[in-house]
Amino acid sequence: MKTIELQTRHKEEFVDISSEIQEAVRASKIERGICLVYVPHTTAGLTINEHADPDVATDILMALKRLVPDSLSWNHSEGNAPAHVKASLVGSSVLIIVEGGRLALGTWQGVFFCEFDGPRRRGVYLKMLADR
Amino acid sequence: MKTIELQTRHKEEFVDISSEIQEAVRASKIERGICLVYVPHTTAGLTINEHADPDVATDILMALKRLVPDSLSWNHSEGNAPAHVKASLVGSSVLIIVEGGRLALGTWQGVFFCEFDGPRRRGVYLKMLADR
Amino acid sequence: MKTIELQTRHKEEFVDISSEIQEAVRASKIERGICLVYVPHTTAGLTINEHADPDVATDILMALKRLVPDSLSWNHSEGNAPAHVKASLVGSSVLIIVEGGRLALGTWQGVFFCEFDGPRRRGVYLKMLADR
Repeated sequence: MKTIELQTRHKEEFVDISSEIQEAVRASKIERGICLVYVPHTTAGLTINEHADPDVATDILMALKRLVPDSLSWNHSEGNAPAHVKASLVGSSVLIIVEGGRLALGTWQGVFFCEFDGPRRRGVYLKMLADR
Repeated sequence: MKTIELQTRHKEEFVDISSEIQEAVRASKIERGICLVYVPHTTAGLTINEHADPDVATDILMALKRLVPDSLSWNHSEGNAPAHVKASLVGSSVLIIVEGGRLALGTWQGVFFCEFDGPRRRGVYLKMLADR
Repeated sequence: MKTIELQTRHKEEFVDISSEIQEAVRASKIERGICLVYVPHTTAGLTINEHADPDVATDILMALKRLVPDSLSWNHSEGNAPAHVKASLVGSSVLIIVEGGRLALGTWQGVFFCEFDGPRRRGVYLKMLADR
């Protein structure tokens, strides 16, 4: 297991971590298999989506804010209940196939760390499973 | 493959199954690898989120009920269409890294079985993939 | 890695690809392990849900359209921002356990390709990881 560390800058933010993951795949020398990317936090998540136009990430964050408004009558008293809900909607992990030592991402795909309660220092776990 | 069986008590409920999964990891004697947790049902799901404060699970269920109201004009005639939608929103599986024979969960993370159409007798599949 | 190709017919559509995946598992001759199903697109996703009654897929699409309306003030200029959001809500991959050379799906479960911006020619990646 390897850990990528990052410092988020905003309350809510998508951070493209594709190149960090690709670098870890290269360092692992795995030729073929899968790469699991996992967030050990409960107010952040991971998603794969378009990284060419940054407006896509902005739109996803906007849509999530509309779906899970800060103004609801939340029970959780720390003020970050919406961040927990958003984390469960996007999910805590993504998987990517590794072929020829590289992530088999689609043309427009990037892997995003989804910050829902920043800014914070965060970690992302990576685990490679190689073909026999 | 191993199966955890559980009996849910309510129509909608999050059940923390982290310790049952940890016990299965221990019994499998796997030191390092990944653990796949999978729900073979279509009106239930799995999510990883905060288990320290039970209000977080309550808030997620409340938010999902607001997102997918029972009162919409559903086509599916069994009366549980909202449960199917919620199952697809949270997802049917979660993955956790295993290190040193233990689940590498974050400090606040627990694994929840998400019941959306209970009470029912349910099963959860576990599959370990060990490092070579 | 293997690729399933498909041609979607509508703007939004769920296509049951369970039998294509099962056929690929059979061809791979894997007896036990996991099968990763992955979509290399950013306006499509994958979900596991009921395949017995096609109304369930219709209801999920209807619920997603209500959650992510076309009419919001989207930043992304290509007109398919809602499709990107829906892709992140359902997710880009699903995992299924393989036992005895067959997908260990629940009785009512099918694997659906979720088209949110069709009709298009699409691909789905499959990756098997066998037990040692």
